[in-house]
Amino acid sequence: MSNNRVRVGILGATGMVGQRFVQLLANHPGFVVTALAASDRSQGKPYGEACTWRLVGDMPPLVRPMVVQSPQPPLECDVVLSSLPSDIARAAEESFARAGYPVISNASSFRMDADVPLLIPEINADHLDVLPRQRRERGFGDGYIVTNPNCSTIIMALALAPLHQRFGIEAVVATTLQAVSGAGYPGVPSLDVVDNVLPFIDGEEAKMERETRKILGRLGHTAFEDAAFVVSAQCHRVNVADGHTVAVRVKLCKRASITEVREALSAYRSVPQELRLHSAPERPVIVRDENDRPQPRLDRDTGGGMSVTVGRLFPDSVLDYRFVVLGHNTIRGAAGAAILNAELLQARGLLEGKSAREDTTATAQARLR
Amino acid sequence: MSNNRVRVGILGATGMVGQRFVQLLANHPGFVVTALAASDRSQGKPYGEACTWRLVGDMPPLVRPMVVQSPQPPLECDVVLSSLPSDIARAAEESFARAGYPVISNASSFRMDADVPLLIPEINADHLDVLPRQRRERGFGDGYIVTNPNCSTIIMALALAPLHQRFGIEAVVATTLQAVSGAGYPGVPSLDVVDNVLPFIDGEEAKMERETRKILGRLGHTAFEDAAFVVSAQCHRVNVADGHTVAVRVKLCKRASITEVREALSAYRSVPQELRLHSAPERPVIVRDENDRPQPRLDRDTGGGMSVTVGRLFPDSVLDYRFVVLGHNTIRGAAGAAILNAELLQARGLLEGKSAREDTTATAQARLR
Amino acid sequence: MSNNRVRVGILGATGMVGQRFVQLLANHPGFVVTALAASDRSQGKPYGEACTWRLVGDMPPLVRPMVVQSPQPPLECDVVLSSLPSDIARAAEESFARAGYPVISNASSFRMDADVPLLIPEINADHLDVLPRQRRERGFGDGYIVTNPNCSTIIMALALAPLHQRFGIEAVVATTLQAVSGAGYPGVPSLDVVDNVLPFIDGEEAKMERETRKILGRLGHTAFEDAAFVVSAQCHRVNVADGHTVAVRVKLCKRASITEVREALSAYRSVPQELRLHSAPERPVIVRDENDRPQPRLDRDTGGGMSVTVGRLFPDSVLDYRFVVLGHNTIRGAAGAAILNAELLQARGLLEGKSAREDTTATAQARLR
Amino acid sequence: MSNNRVRVGILGATGMVGQRFVQLLANHPGFVVTALAASDRSQGKPYGEACTWRLVGDMPPLVRPMVVQSPQPPLECDVVLSSLPSDIARAAEESFARAGYPVISNASSFRMDADVPLLIPEINADHLDVLPRQRRERGFGDGYIVTNPNCSTIIMALALAPLHQRFGIEAVVATTLQAVSGAGYPGVPSLDVVDNVLPFIDGEEAKMERETRKILGRLGHTAFEDAAFVVSAQCHRVNVADGHTVAVRVKLCKRASITEVREALSAYRSVPQELRLHSAPERPVIVRDENDRPQPRLDRDTGGGMSVTVGRLFPDSVLDYRFVVLGHNTIRGAAGAAILNAELLQARGLLEGKSAREDTTATAQARLR
Repeated sequence: MSNNRVRVGILGATGMVGQRFVQLLANHPGFVVTALAASDRSQGKPYGEACTWRLVGDMPPLVRPMVVQSPQPPLECDVVLSSLPSDIARAAEESFARAGYPVISNASSFRMDADVPLLIPEINADHLDVLPRQRRERGFGDGYIVTNPNCSTIIMALALAPLHQRFGIEAVVATTLQAVSGAGYPGVPSLDVVDNVLPFIDGEEAKMERETRKILGRLGHTAFEDAAFVVSAQCHRVNVADGHTVAVRVKLCKRASITEVREALSAYRSVPQELRLHSAPERPVIVRDENDRPQPRLDRDTGGGMSVTVGRLFPDSVLDYRFVVLGHNTIRGAAGAAILNAELLQARGLLEGKSAREDTTATAQARLR
Repeated sequence: MSNNRVRVGILGATGMVGQRFVQLLANHPGFVVTALAASDRSQGKPYGEACTWRLVGDMPPLVRPMVVQSPQPPLECDVVLSSLPSDIARAAEESFARAGYPVISNASSFRMDADVPLLIPEINADHLDVLPRQRRERGFGDGYIVTNPNCSTIIMALALAPLHQRFGIEAVVATTLQAVSGAGYPGVPSLDVVDNVLPFIDGEEAKMERETRKILGRLGHTAFEDAAFVVSAQCHRVNVADGHTVAVRVKLCKRASITEVREALSAYRSVPQELRLHSAPERPVIVRDENDRPQPRLDRDTGGGMSVTVGRLFPDSVLDYRFVVLGHNTIRGAAGAAILNAELLQARGLLEGKSAREDTTATAQARLR
Repeated sequence: MSNNRVRVGILGATGMVGQRFVQLLANHPGFVVTALAASDRSQGKPYGEACTWRLVGDMPPLVRPMVVQSPQPPLECDVVLSSLPSDIARAAEESFARAGYPVISNASSFRMDADVPLLIPEINADHLDVLPRQRRERGFGDGYIVTNPNCSTIIMALALAPLHQRFGIEAVVATTLQAVSGAGYPGVPSLDVVDNVLPFIDGEEAKMERETRKILGRLGHTAFEDAAFVVSAQCHRVNVADGHTVAVRVKLCKRASITEVREALSAYRSVPQELRLHSAPERPVIVRDENDRPQPRLDRDTGGGMSVTVGRLFPDSVLDYRFVVLGHNTIRGAAGAAILNAELLQARGLLEGKSAREDTTATAQARLR
Repeated sequence: MSNNRVRVGILGATGMVGQRFVQLLANHPGFVVTALAASDRSQGKPYGEACTWRLVGDMPPLVRPMVVQSPQPPLECDVVLSSLPSDIARAAEESFARAGYPVISNASSFRMDADVPLLIPEINADHLDVLPRQRRERGFGDGYIVTNPNCSTIIMALALAPLHQRFGIEAVVATTLQAVSGAGYPGVPSLDVVDNVLPFIDGEEAKMERETRKILGRLGHTAFEDAAFVVSAQCHRVNVADGHTVAVRVKLCKRASITEVREALSAYRSVPQELRLHSAPERPVIVRDENDRPQPRLDRDTGGGMSVTVGRLFPDSVLDYRFVVLGHNTIRGAAGAAILNAELLQARGLLEGKSAREDTTATAQARLR
């Protein structure tokens, strides 16, 4: 395949997020999918046969004939993107890192580990500085693990980051209305959302409360230091296909006028925009002033699904400000997040070791199959 | 008709809440519908013809032949229940009160007036003590106006009341996921909720923030005194037919264990239960411990639609406790609320003056039509 | 328990149809649930613990402590109602019949067998005459198997029966819009119906095409003879919780005016109505003349969920007439259908053998557990 | 603006189909929007202010400042595309035609007129030959009126056309499951489709039955001759935002194997494909063999929303074949249909007279505003 594009292996390739990886990478200028792996019975079959494609548009022709492999090293690739189910993600991802692969994971297994970046390139690119320690202490050699946060958390964090940066945050109260695609396929039973709201998403509230503080925290000399605010989350599933809505209240450390808050959000630009990363939206946060926006059906695809949209920004009577933020949960909240992480790692020169060194071996291995 | 049942006139009888009035009163032991009025083109036609029935089950046979009248006094009844649209409610309701009718209104026009009870019988039955002043100052004679709160507000207030009573409330943060029936028919365009969430319900957030404090406030010597807490509300419309869900966080004045909070909620009984009012649910607040309740489709009809269901009660990291409360928006949140108000007024002897005095006139007038 | 009520054992008691059995039998004057069995991991646990109740209203208190048993004889009961999954239904139901139990099944395993009634009491009560042959040829002794049809088929057949009786049917073209509860829980993935229609329900079209002809056929001397018409079915799943809609065209053998067709449908009464069976609706087929009915949300619960509603009856340009028929798929289309079958069997004296004879044994067995 | 692009005026520009016109023409190589008109209170305001944009993505910047005009000639344009409401469409469109404008209409007013083409470029491009007669008899001068069919009809007709061409059609039985966007905004009340199916769309069944025969009929010497088959239609509204599903049975004049039928559908190409019209999909009819396709959410945008997708093609027991066809109702079924008509008219040299002749006048008029 391409000589100058980074070769990507996808773990969990047949799932909903795995399919998004395939879709988003189909015409990517910097990456090319060279290996597909899954934990299920699809191993050994061509992807076109093993995978029931559930996204709009057809499966990209290039991946159809690729044989689905086991999610174990070696795979013919320079980096692995993982959307494995949590129960098997930890062992599989660790074995890839140990075998020298950069592992960019959407799974929750390593997110809260003390030496693993929980990366949103706009917010905490500097958290990558923990990688040398991670490699050293875990004996990963050239390999490493970088994770992206939970879907709702990413969407909310993008709106919190510019406020935390400028004014400091003291407390966050978040209530979600989440799309069903967040649970994959088959995922949420239809009886749970037809004429209904399901006020329970297993583990989600705890993830939002913990992950947000790590993301917006800082990397000290010896460890990550959580941001010094508290987060309260209540999570609900609603009859929406794609697009998580989060109703947010925030208490700030410094006084800020609503104009300053609005300006902080809409002017927000950061590392991925400066580096002009391929998947980086021009504006990570769009602020809309209509009284009935954001709406999932109308706003989820903004910025190719990589921007979040903020609306209904008002002073709040209990905390300081409130707003509603919406983003595409399987793009900005999952597959697109991991790909943006990969693009940042590439820009930082962190995707190169593997391919140079082990190309011959991996290719050889692959040929034997 | 019945000699010992209170004769009820319904204003706005062809709308969604008006239909609920008709349905809930069809077999009521204490009330009988004797007059139907509407502001629209249906005047002069039999109700069975004028009204497209949009509730489950058939239109009660008794009301079918009743001719829809203009919402102006006199009507042949002892009390009027009003679900008129806000724009015409104020003038119409006032004219009935001035003509000596007790007016029990679901409209928002008078709710925040300083001499009008915003009544939830479980919570503030004593607010009725303002009526003598209202009658005197407005020159209403035997007539008066009593209102019920906004639908989301009622549902939330029922869960807040026992907490406020026992522990005092300092702050409330509420986020709603509201059913489409709350906007009547045609109401919410389907494009706004199919695969979508609409983060805007006109006036709703302000109503929840203001009305809650009046309801839980007290009637002082000279005026209502709002409860001394603040409320923050964010309101959303979702793809649900009936049943409003409210995600609530609450900060209490006194320390309380979660067991005490749970107990306060589930043990809550009040005036309507003591008086055994016909529409009073045995338990106004049901607490469920399953991790995925309450759900609109499963819980909205609890207690004949007059109980609210609380679930997911947990300590909160920003305020003190959080929970989700759900209730039937057109029963407990509207028509049932007004009927329960009427039942309380009857129990307090406040529905009697009119019928004795003006029966002859009204009947005579009606016969002339 | 009750001495004069028939003791019912439920196979598949934890599933959606099993829960409907429990719900509908909770206050049944002629039946009492005495045994609950399921094929899954719930065996050995109290039903209240083993079963996540997914119906409106609470689980009936009486069944909560009952221990879920294995779906194998003996069970302490006079009759078993089965909603076992198809893959295990055949063996389990046969073993109960062989052990002398009347088996009334909602599963599809035996429906098309040449000696098994596919019973809708309004339509083909006389098909029960095959039972002596079934018992003899299968060596069932006092046991036997009676089945009810597929949910969509029952709903459509109730509207076809009066037409077939009076005018003869030559061809039927049916297109369904089916509710998600028909697939049980978890059943249909929400991604398949949110902003979507799923044009595929495994096996459903074939069932409608075959079963309808057996139901409306006759029991000859030696075998069932299918009704001499053809059926075409196209089946779709839509975003509806309960209530299957079937758009039907029918070609008749005899000329009939639309008035005669309407009259045949609305005047339809049959055996269950004459016998005043407890679950029999007063009118099996309701005809509505409004241009926008039937609708699932408004009409599914008519007649306690046991009536079907027909609307939009018009002459058809390709066949003779067309109409839309709607019924409750888990009541009239499943659990209620089987219970009505049981009531007919009881009225015919076919539920008695077992209890008299094997009571002691079964009770003894049960005690040993 | 552009000198070589055809200048388009849009009547009904603020409605849902009007917005689709604006969206689809935003980057059109052959057309440029130069005038926006609407019948409502938006006249005199900039489009960006007058129109609440309800499509995914933002309103194109170019139209924002354009002042909404009255739907009366003159407008500064070479052709008008109309999506006016039926009640005012007839008079307005006629006045434009009389003033010399080509009028390409999505409204139903003129569709069945004997001298008006009901155009689907793939099917009946030759129907344009009626235009000289239309102009002459109506005294339109250079103006004329061309219409596109009803949305469901277009989608179905595209799948019927290749079958009619090759095998002849004898009868069609169609049952629709239609999206809510077909009714515009506010359109369908959400209470009609939440947990519901609405079995009634005013006028739709008659439109499908009549229009299909005109479309597939031929233009004789003196008049249109309807295709010699009958059509039966039953129409339903379901909880889907965009994408009409039509379950079709068809009886053919000639015997055809299923392979021939499949081949006829998938090989279908016609005039727009030969002329390489900008909006023409490469393949007007896509045939899919998966058992669960087509699905609105996955297939409506195929071919930029201009292809229809056929699936579940099977022999039928009552007619000859059955299949499900799906298309995007506001693109292929409305705005895209009219634009494709315009492209065909342009290719045929029928969009030129106006601009050359009246440019000066129109521009002058426009300047005076």
